Amino acid sequence: MKAKAAVLREFGKPLEMQEFEVQPLGAGEVLAKVVAAGVCGSDVHIWKGEDPRTPVPIILGHEGIGEIADLGSQKRDVLGRELKPGDLVMWERGIMCGECYQCVIAKQPALCSARKTYGISVSCAEPPYLNGHYAQYIHLRARCHFLKIDPEIDPKVLVPASCSGATATHAVEQADVKPGDNVLVIGPGPVGLYVLASCLNRGAGAVYVAGAAPDKQRLELCKQFGAAGTLNVSESTPEERAEQIAEWTHRLGFNVGIDCTGITASVGEFLQYVAPYGAYLIPGIATPVGQLPVSLYEHLARKNVRLQGVWVSDTSHLYQAIRLVLSGRFPFETIVTHSYPLEAANQALDDMATRKAMKAVLEPWE
Amino acid sequence: MKAKAAVLREFGKPLEMQEFEVQPLGAGEVLAKVVAAGVCGSDVHIWKGEDPRTPVPIILGHEGIGEIADLGSQKRDVLGRELKPGDLVMWERGIMCGECYQCVIAKQPALCSARKTYGISVSCAEPPYLNGHYAQYIHLRARCHFLKIDPEIDPKVLVPASCSGATATHAVEQADVKPGDNVLVIGPGPVGLYVLASCLNRGAGAVYVAGAAPDKQRLELCKQFGAAGTLNVSESTPEERAEQIAEWTHRLGFNVGIDCTGITASVGEFLQYVAPYGAYLIPGIATPVGQLPVSLYEHLARKNVRLQGVWVSDTSHLYQAIRLVLSGRFPFETIVTHSYPLEAANQALDDMATRKAMKAVLEPWE
Amino acid sequence: MKAKAAVLREFGKPLEMQEFEVQPLGAGEVLAKVVAAGVCGSDVHIWKGEDPRTPVPIILGHEGIGEIADLGSQKRDVLGRELKPGDLVMWERGIMCGECYQCVIAKQPALCSARKTYGISVSCAEPPYLNGHYAQYIHLRARCHFLKIDPEIDPKVLVPASCSGATATHAVEQADVKPGDNVLVIGPGPVGLYVLASCLNRGAGAVYVAGAAPDKQRLELCKQFGAAGTLNVSESTPEERAEQIAEWTHRLGFNVGIDCTGITASVGEFLQYVAPYGAYLIPGIATPVGQLPVSLYEHLARKNVRLQGVWVSDTSHLYQAIRLVLSGRFPFETIVTHSYPLEAANQALDDMATRKAMKAVLEPWE
Amino acid sequence: MKAKAAVLREFGKPLEMQEFEVQPLGAGEVLAKVVAAGVCGSDVHIWKGEDPRTPVPIILGHEGIGEIADLGSQKRDVLGRELKPGDLVMWERGIMCGECYQCVIAKQPALCSARKTYGISVSCAEPPYLNGHYAQYIHLRARCHFLKIDPEIDPKVLVPASCSGATATHAVEQADVKPGDNVLVIGPGPVGLYVLASCLNRGAGAVYVAGAAPDKQRLELCKQFGAAGTLNVSESTPEERAEQIAEWTHRLGFNVGIDCTGITASVGEFLQYVAPYGAYLIPGIATPVGQLPVSLYEHLARKNVRLQGVWVSDTSHLYQAIRLVLSGRFPFETIVTHSYPLEAANQALDDMATRKAMKAVLEPWE
Repeated sequence: MKAKAAVLREFGKPLEMQEFEVQPLGAGEVLAKVVAAGVCGSDVHIWKGEDPRTPVPIILGHEGIGEIADLGSQKRDVLGRELKPGDLVMWERGIMCGECYQCVIAKQPALCSARKTYGISVSCAEPPYLNGHYAQYIHLRARCHFLKIDPEIDPKVLVPASCSGATATHAVEQADVKPGDNVLVIGPGPVGLYVLASCLNRGAGAVYVAGAAPDKQRLELCKQFGAAGTLNVSESTPEERAEQIAEWTHRLGFNVGIDCTGITASVGEFLQYVAPYGAYLIPGIATPVGQLPVSLYEHLARKNVRLQGVWVSDTSHLYQAIRLVLSGRFPFETIVTHSYPLEAANQALDDMATRKAMKAVLEPWE
Repeated sequence: MKAKAAVLREFGKPLEMQEFEVQPLGAGEVLAKVVAAGVCGSDVHIWKGEDPRTPVPIILGHEGIGEIADLGSQKRDVLGRELKPGDLVMWERGIMCGECYQCVIAKQPALCSARKTYGISVSCAEPPYLNGHYAQYIHLRARCHFLKIDPEIDPKVLVPASCSGATATHAVEQADVKPGDNVLVIGPGPVGLYVLASCLNRGAGAVYVAGAAPDKQRLELCKQFGAAGTLNVSESTPEERAEQIAEWTHRLGFNVGIDCTGITASVGEFLQYVAPYGAYLIPGIATPVGQLPVSLYEHLARKNVRLQGVWVSDTSHLYQAIRLVLSGRFPFETIVTHSYPLEAANQALDDMATRKAMKAVLEPWE
Repeated sequence: MKAKAAVLREFGKPLEMQEFEVQPLGAGEVLAKVVAAGVCGSDVHIWKGEDPRTPVPIILGHEGIGEIADLGSQKRDVLGRELKPGDLVMWERGIMCGECYQCVIAKQPALCSARKTYGISVSCAEPPYLNGHYAQYIHLRARCHFLKIDPEIDPKVLVPASCSGATATHAVEQADVKPGDNVLVIGPGPVGLYVLASCLNRGAGAVYVAGAAPDKQRLELCKQFGAAGTLNVSESTPEERAEQIAEWTHRLGFNVGIDCTGITASVGEFLQYVAPYGAYLIPGIATPVGQLPVSLYEHLARKNVRLQGVWVSDTSHLYQAIRLVLSGRFPFETIVTHSYPLEAANQALDDMATRKAMKAVLEPWE
Repeated sequence: MKAKAAVLREFGKPLEMQEFEVQPLGAGEVLAKVVAAGVCGSDVHIWKGEDPRTPVPIILGHEGIGEIADLGSQKRDVLGRELKPGDLVMWERGIMCGECYQCVIAKQPALCSARKTYGISVSCAEPPYLNGHYAQYIHLRARCHFLKIDPEIDPKVLVPASCSGATATHAVEQADVKPGDNVLVIGPGPVGLYVLASCLNRGAGAVYVAGAAPDKQRLELCKQFGAAGTLNVSESTPEERAEQIAEWTHRLGFNVGIDCTGITASVGEFLQYVAPYGAYLIPGIATPVGQLPVSLYEHLARKNVRLQGVWVSDTSHLYQAIRLVLSGRFPFETIVTHSYPLEAANQALDDMATRKAMKAVLEPWE
């Protein structure tokens, strides 16, 4: 059996369609038919060669949902349900060793010292080749974790949960958002919307969102998700933002800021608005962005504030993200704005790069 | 009744001895006879006018131990024991409002929005005047928290627990040191020694200490406290330090770094050695020190690390610090290297400024 | 000035109306006009003399909302807003010492060793007399914590937040409900509904509710609040319930059970359905109920489960409960089913005792 | 190659020596030469057939230390060090699936739904046969976690860390012992001694130990480990114990009680002495012991106390236990009182059953 895939051979050059021979499954391995693959904002960085983890050639795509096509041996999902061909499933995008300090002692497999990610750091040069989601099939390693999905949902809607959503729930978990907290989310893209929803889902008293001009429509969407207010950075001065934030928070500052922009200047502006004992998390920083001058006394020490990185996610965060979408409380169906056949992967990347699409998905079998 | 005190009238000028009339006690207030007052490293900064919180004139001194001299009304210590004149006691150096968001909702009174500190931010210009520890008596406000101390201990030994020690236990609490963790402490002064002891007391597997050349003797002292190894920054290159740290931590990095130096360059060097999911805390930063360029991706995001301020402490941390000293496990008696009569306060400040003394105490009644 | 109040003189006997002279306010004290007072389920137990804390004579009522009538001195709410006569406010029902081990070291003032509660444990025999909410005015002690309320909300709706709601958010905080968790709430009364809402508000994946036949209507209401399913204990066998729970939880059990019934037999039945590493909390137990035989191996040890008491709440939980109501996400207006003038307090108690009312409130000024 | 082992064929009957053919190693599997195997108190229960998990025939023994004899493929320890034949190592005694809800979502592999334990729940009827520690070799499954041990230590001393020690650190982790806490440990056997040491290692202010008359010598040993006081249950009345505890804790009660006895009557007596917001953990309950009547109001609800099971441990707890022993702070060498050749396994079990030995080890190669 053969499977088509969109392959990145050279950074910055168009992906090329290629056929791969599907390999036999080892014990515990699973072949999944990719129903929908997400085109993540970070795929644009990866495509440009800005992510130091990426080898070429590679089948891009680390987000997805699919059907069980074949099983190397009996297998259960994380809730103990046996998997059968045809089952709609989602899976953990990271390949963890299960044996290192991070996996076993710290119990934080997101930081596994040997972690690889389908579509980001596993080349397609060696068997089993099908190591990314921009493909008809993906060959998942033994010990991959699965969650069965009720087939009644539109699978596309769940796609962003597998990376943006899981990273967001991981960020919110670490932010330790408490009921009643005031939160500022910076960057109203897919991660930002998941963060917004996840904060509300953990009882935040009010969540506000800051974004720039091209995000105006996205800021409107944030209100549909439940944002208590928005800040358009392109249509206000820093002083106006400071005043607005002071008013929103009774001059206490935000208990939590979660910066999904990946832009140092954003951290530079909004870190100062964290309340004493609060936290500012930066899940948006996923590739090198240089240095930010930080006022250690004024912005961290004097207020006992933490500035914290958030790195990817593990299966527990994926589980949280999926249950968040399935709760039906938030209009997640609005996040996926564009879908394409597999062959149009370059167009999809382009529409993500130009922010024409909020979130694009590829549907290799449409 | 009158009480002598050492008063700072003008920043950078010598303290002057002055007599104050002891004021009558209101309900809940306590007059304590100062048995020993600590001269904290930050007193040098305060004396120079580098701490934005300080008014003049002021009686310096925020560390101390004393005897109950008089009580405005019946009063118990935090363990429910009734206080009587003559009892040896320690008390919380901060004056908290008990009514603000930080006191009541966040339950972090160290960050009380109205917090004042005896000897740092309460002038002696107004009654009850005796608002600092460089004095024969201190007039403690209603709702001050006390812990009775067994009179068999040398009171001087406990003095640093009231600020350096409490700040250290607060830092270690937030660091969330886990049994078996590898820790790096930077800066082997009083705070650093308390941090070292407190980390071991919370089960750290190994604690290492970095310090500069004049600290050589202090680094030796760290070994007596149980440090597993030391780094002399003045006698090694950054590369040698990197290699030594890699060896100590099996190339995983430190689970926790706690920087007690108050020097941005120190944070700039050692932040990079934090292990994934680890923390770097900066209790040493207590006055403005400018900005530090931070590599957001490499040092925070990619490793899911947090860089965190630590601001002062509350009574729970004081309690921990006192129990730490009383446990007898560590040679805390070595920290207080110099003692002086109250009238020699300027000499004591000078000996702290020149690092001739590790920790100086004033004994107003000797 | 005089104020009317409903006074319990003898356990089990009708409350009697009495007028009290309003006392002058000390520094920090506040006189509040009671806009609405809640009749809590536990008021029925208190009235019968089943709560060991209660002295007589006493003005019952520990839940309420009111307007600032007068201030002993300048005062701010927990968000730092200055209070003025006429402001609509809620306040903490507990009087805490702020100086004991629980208040200061454990920072859990709900367990303050000297805790008194307005309407439960402070008699009206001594000035300032007005120590309960079944009255036109309540005389609140210095250091009482306040939160200003937007006057646009119907104040009655917020009343149960001051005890049932705060106890519920405290229970859920201790339950440590995580996003995606499956929860079972037992007892769909006011506490149960707040627990249900609070669990959903902290991201529970699904919350189920068990109740008995007279609660059938209440179980319906639970569905309006977002319950994923209900169990009518009167119309099913234990085996049927076991089977239903197994199906709901994929045979893993509930991550968390929160028992709001105050009935030992309920704990005896549902404790067994907790998942490994889960928790079973019993906020419903507020008066002595005898002993429950617990299978230590099967229900606790083998599954690493905790069985945990929940005692009242502090201001942080009140704050959470109020923000929960104000979020508008849940139909809290349905909880208050009956309102009465102050003079009809006995009727209100009776309607609570017979479960005719879900939650009754008194409106002393209507 | 053949290996000798002591086999339990019928509950309550003497173990019999048997030779097994060593099986070839699969990828990731490891053959370890058993240097020393622990005879755990629970082995006596298992031998009698009181543990519902145990199949026969079985090679007993779930504690041990050994040398790498052979490797199925390249393998690293949890600190990333490559393993070589001859390395002294310890390993996790549990076999976890790494794919279930507990392993992956709750990240608590001690509760893995498919957990098996070498020497407790894996028969020797099927290849690879060598599934317990009372043997010359043990055949460890793929994904077993290892920690390399410095060969300079006497390996016997570390043996109890692999079960008693790891269970103890797990208990103390869940107890959330805080610096300065007062703790009561009940049952001064191997688990109790590890719990005592582990509490002190996490900063407990004072740890007290209760035991019965035959434990008198053990209570003395507790003092060598650092116990602040002991209670001999056989030589005091319940009233005397209550009074002693009140005095020790300033009538506040213990912040934490950890019951290592496995006796319901012990839980029945000491649960009442937990302080408000405290915890009582029962790691001693490892086999069915019947029901204990619990006063829900007085002992749990009114004081917000939790009664909590502790089930086995995972590799993170093993790591903590090993580092605790290696810290050299406690005289762990005193715990192993008896050692025997493999052939004397029945004598060793007998000496554990009669409490003649505190902890017996088998040395199959002596």
